Amino acid sequence: MNSARKARQEIRNGHHRGPTAALSPGHVQANLIVLPRALAFDFLLFANRNPKACPVVEIVEQGYEASRTAPRSDLRTDLPGYRLFVDGELTESASDATEWWRDDLVSFLLGCSYSFDHALARNGIPVRHLERACSVPMFVTDRSCEPAGDFSGPLVVSMRPIPEQLIADTVAITDGYGHAHGGPVHIGDPAALGIGDMSCPDFGDPVPINPHEVPVFWACGVTSQTAIAAARPELAITHRPGAMFITDLVDHR
Amino acid sequence: MNSARKARQEIRNGHHRGPTAALSPGHVQANLIVLPRALAFDFLLFANRNPKACPVVEIVEQGYEASRTAPRSDLRTDLPGYRLFVDGELTESASDATEWWRDDLVSFLLGCSYSFDHALARNGIPVRHLERACSVPMFVTDRSCEPAGDFSGPLVVSMRPIPEQLIADTVAITDGYGHAHGGPVHIGDPAALGIGDMSCPDFGDPVPINPHEVPVFWACGVTSQTAIAAARPELAITHRPGAMFITDLVDHR
Repeated sequence: MNSARKARQEIRNGHHRGPTAALSPGHVQANLIVLPRALAFDFLLFANRNPKACPVVEIVEQGYEASRTAPRSDLRTDLPGYRLFVDGELTESASDATEWWRDDLVSFLLGCSYSFDHALARNGIPVRHLERACSVPMFVTDRSCEPAGDFSGPLVVSMRPIPEQLIADTVAITDGYGHAHGGPVHIGDPAALGIGDMSCPDFGDPVPINPHEVPVFWACGVTSQTAIAAARPELAITHRPGAMFITDLVDHR
Repeated sequence: MNSARKARQEIRNGHHRGPTAALSPGHVQANLIVLPRALAFDFLLFANRNPKACPVVEIVEQGYEASRTAPRSDLRTDLPGYRLFVDGELTESASDATEWWRDDLVSFLLGCSYSFDHALARNGIPVRHLERACSVPMFVTDRSCEPAGDFSGPLVVSMRPIPEQLIADTVAITDGYGHAHGGPVHIGDPAALGIGDMSCPDFGDPVPINPHEVPVFWACGVTSQTAIAAARPELAITHRPGAMFITDLVDHR
């Protein structure tokens, strides 16, 4: 049994309830967003129009609960935590989504930045939030996403401080992770994205920027959650932040 | 006025009824597929799952007739020819699709290989069907597309004979055209794709393969038409083969 399948089984059996970042290294992890079929076209269009923020790893159609990236998986039970949104409002959290499931639900697996964080670290590029064992700082920008149907909102970015002499390598490495937000959307002055105070991220934890480091910004999966909040769908199920779906896909670097 | 907009106006005014290949060089041209909103999610999913055959250039939602790649365009009038399919059967052809249009139609613009044909020629790589002023030969393969909903079917490929010493360049150049089928899906023995007689293409015209040339195969937009025929949608509108939509997008090489 590969380590990804083993991790999914342990989660399903209730033996792991925490974040997934350290589980099954080398396997692609994904954000989960589940919507009624009636909204699936608009959301897929939103993802297609904003591919850096919403990179599609897989879509699981209505009537299926297993991801094809992970045979014998069950999207209703194989994540450590789920959130239920009704009309755009968070109403419940649970470690099992089976009771909330309906026959008309479509599941979207969207790439997450764990893939390239580990690749950066492996290539000798310091990743501040890994060093400090905290969350990556995330900021709401003044850039608007391309809307689709009722899905709209600002681009949300994550920030990593990178030493000046390693920026080119950082771009080259992350650009190869198109399924995980790809290359940066901005390098340098946060004001260019409408970001004021770098010590007060909108999500996640602040991290220090050392001398001769430059803030580098990547599109972030929280963008999709903001767009869903704007659309106020009658029902949406998502993973709990940090509690990702672990696929059998192997990171390609 | 740019040459793409001028070409669209001439087509709209009935002054150009023929193929678009030679019009407005340097601008991206696109296949048009129009489907009822009820089928739009499944078809977009099919395109996402088979991106080499169905590269999405743009999607125009129900209620809109202008492409955002081409301000002031009208998808109902700006192509030289249209085809109407009812329950998967070709029922009518026309030079204007306005009478067939409905409020619930979603338009898909998919990339076409004109972009990289011209790029190959510019880079000194012989393009046999351009030299002979005929259609590129296309073959139905024994590879199945990833299905989505009722959309399914074999991968259809186009073939260009390439001199052995230019194959690496050919791959590198076409790989950069992700919006236009990208790099080859196969190089060499046609039997590996289940293709028997190279002198009898399923679509287009046969072209000779000279000594020291190798047949190189690319995913082809006809794949999507085959999938639509399989799905038998109650209504579909497409461009007439060769009569593409000319966008304002500039080819990037």
